[in-house]
Amino acid sequence: MTTKKIIMDCDPGHDDAIAIILAAARTELDILGITTVSGNAEIEKTTWNALKICDLVGLKDVTVSKGASQPLVRLRETAPDIHGDSGLDGPALPEPSRGWSGEHGADSIIRLVQEAKEPVTLLATGPLTNVALALTKANDINENIEEIVLMGGGTFGNWTPTAEFNIWADPEAARKVFESGIPITVMGLDITHQALATPAIIERVNKIDNDVAQIVGELLAFFASTYKEMFDFNGAPVHDVLTVAYCIAPELFTMKDVNIAVETKGEFTAGTTLVDLHGVTGRTINAKFGTGLDVAGFWALMIEALKKY
Amino acid sequence: MTTKKIIMDCDPGHDDAIAIILAAARTELDILGITTVSGNAEIEKTTWNALKICDLVGLKDVTVSKGASQPLVRLRETAPDIHGDSGLDGPALPEPSRGWSGEHGADSIIRLVQEAKEPVTLLATGPLTNVALALTKANDINENIEEIVLMGGGTFGNWTPTAEFNIWADPEAARKVFESGIPITVMGLDITHQALATPAIIERVNKIDNDVAQIVGELLAFFASTYKEMFDFNGAPVHDVLTVAYCIAPELFTMKDVNIAVETKGEFTAGTTLVDLHGVTGRTINAKFGTGLDVAGFWALMIEALKKY
Amino acid sequence: MTTKKIIMDCDPGHDDAIAIILAAARTELDILGITTVSGNAEIEKTTWNALKICDLVGLKDVTVSKGASQPLVRLRETAPDIHGDSGLDGPALPEPSRGWSGEHGADSIIRLVQEAKEPVTLLATGPLTNVALALTKANDINENIEEIVLMGGGTFGNWTPTAEFNIWADPEAARKVFESGIPITVMGLDITHQALATPAIIERVNKIDNDVAQIVGELLAFFASTYKEMFDFNGAPVHDVLTVAYCIAPELFTMKDVNIAVETKGEFTAGTTLVDLHGVTGRTINAKFGTGLDVAGFWALMIEALKKY
Amino acid sequence: MTTKKIIMDCDPGHDDAIAIILAAARTELDILGITTVSGNAEIEKTTWNALKICDLVGLKDVTVSKGASQPLVRLRETAPDIHGDSGLDGPALPEPSRGWSGEHGADSIIRLVQEAKEPVTLLATGPLTNVALALTKANDINENIEEIVLMGGGTFGNWTPTAEFNIWADPEAARKVFESGIPITVMGLDITHQALATPAIIERVNKIDNDVAQIVGELLAFFASTYKEMFDFNGAPVHDVLTVAYCIAPELFTMKDVNIAVETKGEFTAGTTLVDLHGVTGRTINAKFGTGLDVAGFWALMIEALKKY
Repeated sequence: MTTKKIIMDCDPGHDDAIAIILAAARTELDILGITTVSGNAEIEKTTWNALKICDLVGLKDVTVSKGASQPLVRLRETAPDIHGDSGLDGPALPEPSRGWSGEHGADSIIRLVQEAKEPVTLLATGPLTNVALALTKANDINENIEEIVLMGGGTFGNWTPTAEFNIWADPEAARKVFESGIPITVMGLDITHQALATPAIIERVNKIDNDVAQIVGELLAFFASTYKEMFDFNGAPVHDVLTVAYCIAPELFTMKDVNIAVETKGEFTAGTTLVDLHGVTGRTINAKFGTGLDVAGFWALMIEALKKY
Repeated sequence: MTTKKIIMDCDPGHDDAIAIILAAARTELDILGITTVSGNAEIEKTTWNALKICDLVGLKDVTVSKGASQPLVRLRETAPDIHGDSGLDGPALPEPSRGWSGEHGADSIIRLVQEAKEPVTLLATGPLTNVALALTKANDINENIEEIVLMGGGTFGNWTPTAEFNIWADPEAARKVFESGIPITVMGLDITHQALATPAIIERVNKIDNDVAQIVGELLAFFASTYKEMFDFNGAPVHDVLTVAYCIAPELFTMKDVNIAVETKGEFTAGTTLVDLHGVTGRTINAKFGTGLDVAGFWALMIEALKKY
Repeated sequence: MTTKKIIMDCDPGHDDAIAIILAAARTELDILGITTVSGNAEIEKTTWNALKICDLVGLKDVTVSKGASQPLVRLRETAPDIHGDSGLDGPALPEPSRGWSGEHGADSIIRLVQEAKEPVTLLATGPLTNVALALTKANDINENIEEIVLMGGGTFGNWTPTAEFNIWADPEAARKVFESGIPITVMGLDITHQALATPAIIERVNKIDNDVAQIVGELLAFFASTYKEMFDFNGAPVHDVLTVAYCIAPELFTMKDVNIAVETKGEFTAGTTLVDLHGVTGRTINAKFGTGLDVAGFWALMIEALKKY
Repeated sequence: MTTKKIIMDCDPGHDDAIAIILAAARTELDILGITTVSGNAEIEKTTWNALKICDLVGLKDVTVSKGASQPLVRLRETAPDIHGDSGLDGPALPEPSRGWSGEHGADSIIRLVQEAKEPVTLLATGPLTNVALALTKANDINENIEEIVLMGGGTFGNWTPTAEFNIWADPEAARKVFESGIPITVMGLDITHQALATPAIIERVNKIDNDVAQIVGELLAFFASTYKEMFDFNGAPVHDVLTVAYCIAPELFTMKDVNIAVETKGEFTAGTTLVDLHGVTGRTINAKFGTGLDVAGFWALMIEALKKY
């Protein structure tokens, strides 16, 4: 079996944490490094959370590099209403056994891509600040990036009526990424809202008798409670996890080739993605966009992975 | 039975035409006047089409006033791919028996509202240029407008990935209307795409044995063909007709009180409506937004009306 | 001597008032009508002020038509810090002897242009709302407008660091006018700030022994006091008067053919005019822009006109 | 005599080159490092040019670090019409005796500021990409930056009617810098256009009998020829040199405390600086802006420095 080399750029965050847990359980993914970004919570917290999750799943050799503490241009905003004050409220996890690498996240991305002997897949599940910084500093790395699989955007919004949080939090960075020419695969709200951790799902997770699954159950329970309160959803969409699932089992996903543009200038619409599903804009295709998910298959994959711990 | 005084500001347009046909069939609606605007086609064509439809349904005493030939600020664009070159391609209708009133559409709206002894409902099914012009010229008419029921916008787009045609064609006018303080009821794409004239519906219409129904059948057949080609829809959404149906039978509609803002400044998003379904913006409610339609009830209403001719 | 047919669209305003006074004194200008707009003060006040000035200079047959009370799209803002609460603070003028025409200012512009047997020059010294409304309602009038001579814009601003008040107050209307294809002559801040009513000038005016000149002296004194306070100018720039002076004595003016674009979308820059003095944009020439004034000649013209009363 | 620690972030460019030459001649300035950015020419060229100038003036121990090859968000544009294809056309200079440091310019800024035992002054004479990258990556360095003295912006433009090249080339970076809270001193076009290298000045330079002065004479001659052709100026404004002169002799400069905002969103105005000279915006003061120059004193300083070589 060939393995896929991945870098996980993230802002844990409940669904980021579960994404790492899923990736660590699968041998076909080789995690070269984890980089953190300000997003769901401030950079100190998301880095802290990433380190805790690495301990939980035994990722001892994967460096965690703290990245951008603020967006490229705009002021920082975080999402405590969704992820709690720590960015990962819910389960009580031990303090991390080690610190971050000392290398800036963007520099870590550059180095890992440059050092890799084969093309790297970049999973980006937070605001795209680190990725944009890396591309601005070293645009020669494009050639060794096989694909950027990102969670962000959609044909509708959650943080504003038309914008999803990750893109909204740093629209200029997102624009840089979508205009980079690198192959982009997008898990937007259209598909991530299909992956709802309903009470039935949570029950299935809770029945798995190991520490990691128990923690995941607690993460899902907390996440579901904030989605219930804020959006009246019957379960939490595990957005970021889809990026990892896609790398493992792309056959579960219905994808469409589209152009995606990112608005950076509007009065109300900055951070909106324009996903051209019907080809009305005439703009060139620059992304694969997730439209349909084999929901049962996705959860089966997830449950199976959790059982391995 | 009390009647509702309405003014129909429109750009026929297949669905505008059917909206007039429905309104004319119902005694609870008193059509004070019809005003035309550039939109689906140029102003000369939409005015010509309105006059033809008045002849078809015997609206002899309703004045038709030609309004704005171009948007408030932007350059004009029309939609020949959807409505054909005439704006009403499909059936062969006789030339109109009379001309337009000679009064500008915006002035006609002002005069009709000022002369009415009771509050008037304004149905707007094209770009909102005439309405905005009327409000700019005579903002004292607000008090005698009961409600503006308009077709436009939605949580997604058709003319761009995020913008619907009517709002996109004159975003500045739309903004003026949504900020006017007048009660606004919005039939956006979310609800109008539920009102699909499928082959089965068209067959029901074709079985009605009168001239008007036969013409409606031809209009629907043409409209369905362009929607099939452009958007791969299995039927044409009869967008504008919902504004009239709402005035007759509001119980068929599920509505939600929301704030709607109109983007006028974006690089890609001008004409996008931000429909705040989840109250995430904190902006004040300024519109009722259609989310659900009793589809069977709607078509029953339509069929029944056509049988009266 | 041939006369020039002019329409004066204005928002008096101290300098608008003096512009009317200059125009009325000169037989080579035939004032077809005066239309008013909201700008320096609310529409009721600017109309009231225009009527007062007509009485002062004996313009009994010129109709005054009240126009737009608010901008095309934006909310209204006025300039009481500059023109006082009445829009024409300073001299005590009697109440007008007559009312306004009852015809909307924009409709008055349309009618006067359509009725004129020769091309008309439109002098616009307030926000361009009426002009834009007229062009939107009747774009066939373009052919009978010889030129629009307007006061507005410049290479720097007064109301914001980059925007002049008239353009800033209704940028969308200004854009419509600059994109209309009609020949535009622009008196912007670059040239109007050369026409300072210094204490020496005011003294010359005050020595003229007639009622009109005495009123002008009082207007200039008030206007100079607000410019001193707000901008630390040693005299008030009589902005709007230059449009009339240009129609009488264009030889006093150094003009440059340029492209002028109007920003309507910026976060900070809406209402900014981009005057392309060095041809760096490559955009087509659409305006004559005033760069230099024969200051002595201008004031000689003004003094001579005041002596005729 | 105390020395001022400076970092020079630049894109040589004729006036950047002369700025380095002036700085190297003065013992009160301690050049900690030179960082280069894409601007007047591509990054490879501006770095090459910086290395050449270091050789010319004997700056053997100052590291030259190559920085950003493209703006933060936008696509790169350079200015070959002004600086020639090499970015430093005119004199024939030998190839550099050494290469660049291998450290990215933004990282070099971060390291030099962090290592300095006293606050550092940052001179920025190109687009502000490196500075913004440094602030995004390490916002803790703010405290050890005494001041950023930059060339950019003004109350009018050169690259567009309202925007100066350095700010226009990376408006998002400029916004980041102006919103950083670090003290900013701005040499904009208002003051740099006072520092014209006229034929008389060039003659004075040419009479100085040393290699460096002869090269400066050639640089000025080339630069003056492009300014003559493009803007019809009687001499080249030596923009960037003023940042160095200000550090040496601030008494030659008339400065005004103002707010400066940077437009990033306009349709025509991105990169425009809004310099609030009259306090009309109510925004907080965030910059010192150069309004007046002791021209004779400035050139005396320059000539004296050249004589030292």
